[in-house]
Amino acid sequence: MLQQRTVFFISDGTGITAGALGQLLAHFPQTNFAQVRAPFTDSIAKIEEVKQRILIAKVADGMRPVVIMSLGNVEHRLLIKTADAYFIDLFQTFIDPLGLELAQEPLTGKGIAHGVMGANYHERMEAINFTLGHDDGMTNNGFEEAEVILIGVSRCGKTPTSVYLAMQFGIKAANYPLIPEDFERGTLPEVLYKHLHKIFGLTIKAERLHNVRSERRPNSFYASLENCKKEIATAERLMLKNNITWADSTSRSVEELSAIILQKIRQPAN
Amino acid sequence: MLQQRTVFFISDGTGITAGALGQLLAHFPQTNFAQVRAPFTDSIAKIEEVKQRILIAKVADGMRPVVIMSLGNVEHRLLIKTADAYFIDLFQTFIDPLGLELAQEPLTGKGIAHGVMGANYHERMEAINFTLGHDDGMTNNGFEEAEVILIGVSRCGKTPTSVYLAMQFGIKAANYPLIPEDFERGTLPEVLYKHLHKIFGLTIKAERLHNVRSERRPNSFYASLENCKKEIATAERLMLKNNITWADSTSRSVEELSAIILQKIRQPAN
Repeated sequence: MLQQRTVFFISDGTGITAGALGQLLAHFPQTNFAQVRAPFTDSIAKIEEVKQRILIAKVADGMRPVVIMSLGNVEHRLLIKTADAYFIDLFQTFIDPLGLELAQEPLTGKGIAHGVMGANYHERMEAINFTLGHDDGMTNNGFEEAEVILIGVSRCGKTPTSVYLAMQFGIKAANYPLIPEDFERGTLPEVLYKHLHKIFGLTIKAERLHNVRSERRPNSFYASLENCKKEIATAERLMLKNNITWADSTSRSVEELSAIILQKIRQPAN
Repeated sequence: MLQQRTVFFISDGTGITAGALGQLLAHFPQTNFAQVRAPFTDSIAKIEEVKQRILIAKVADGMRPVVIMSLGNVEHRLLIKTADAYFIDLFQTFIDPLGLELAQEPLTGKGIAHGVMGANYHERMEAINFTLGHDDGMTNNGFEEAEVILIGVSRCGKTPTSVYLAMQFGIKAANYPLIPEDFERGTLPEVLYKHLHKIFGLTIKAERLHNVRSERRPNSFYASLENCKKEIATAERLMLKNNITWADSTSRSVEELSAIILQKIRQPAN
């Protein structure tokens, strides 16, 4: 049985810095983390209120909560730490020491413009617009501009992966479905052949695809296990024939798939 | 002038844990960080290769690089640390101590299924599909299902913000543009009135909107500063009249806008 534990993300700003640390929790799959966000915690009164919520969570779980905190104000940090919790203090552990290394006073609270200041923010926003305009074979125009084109059978995870690549890494990711017509013809859609070098394939286990498709169209031929198996086998054969690298999305998140794709298209660095 | 500094994200898995810490760098706007990802660094040979790259970056920058590392293998950790760099070791600083608190051995490397294991992964993927199907007023069906509907003038940031809300928080976010017809009529689009409680507005400074629109349609009436000013003023008046909360996207990233919207629609917790 999973252990239940509440995690608070407490910040004097938007909570983006503290929230990012939520990724660490994936290292502990035996615990069911209930995540509570407390952004804009920038006054004594708000700190006191969060302290109350920590106490309530502790009583409910029968375990002291984990608190991941990013508070620039030293007085607020000390006050919150009088609560009974396990604290991960980003300023103390990371930001202040890094500031010493860089010989810079770190920004705190609302002063931080996450992302906006980054040179690649504009690039990320443009990539999102591109990806939304090139989802699911919506148009064949602009494939020249794409950095990667994801292909695969319907509902194998192309869309969320494309969106994540664009959002997180500023990659103009188009995606194009492989459909029954392609399987009958036994070739990739014509439009793809001149872009083979930037195509990456996704595949999925038949049982999973059957489940996913059944949610949309229960009891259809489209969703049947038999059809899923056949589509997947044919799609993989097409990709193999054209020397296209692919990854299985069945037990991988979009974050993981994106890391794999990034590794392939942006070797060796960056 | 900005200080140039290379940051390595070194991981034995996808690099998602280490990469998340990149958010911390926003606290130091005076440094221009060149980010280098080194995922799947899971052998002595690969560690040695990354060490070489650290050395090269140090010579190029004239400053030792920052290394954010998530390596489960203790021998690999020690080896990488013989390089001349400033190390942020996520296992040593965070993951191992948190494991002690939770009385659990943390997963390492490829064992971690970031996101997939999370109860809300499916929810996030569904939200992305919803949001892509309800972008830019594409359809009025399904607004009942939306958790939030973003409105605002064309190119004020609705689409990327909707996508981020869906991707990051599993929020079904629709968006609907306010267009000249609405301004002439002086009312919101009819379809929105029964969903006023879940509408959130975005606005933007006229100069910025003028720049953004000019990239798409230079020298058009649509992109003219005069028209941008007028559209924005009318949109804000409409939102005010209907008691709609709004935020200015001019100097906020999608991460920050999403935090603000989340705070409003999911008060007080979670």
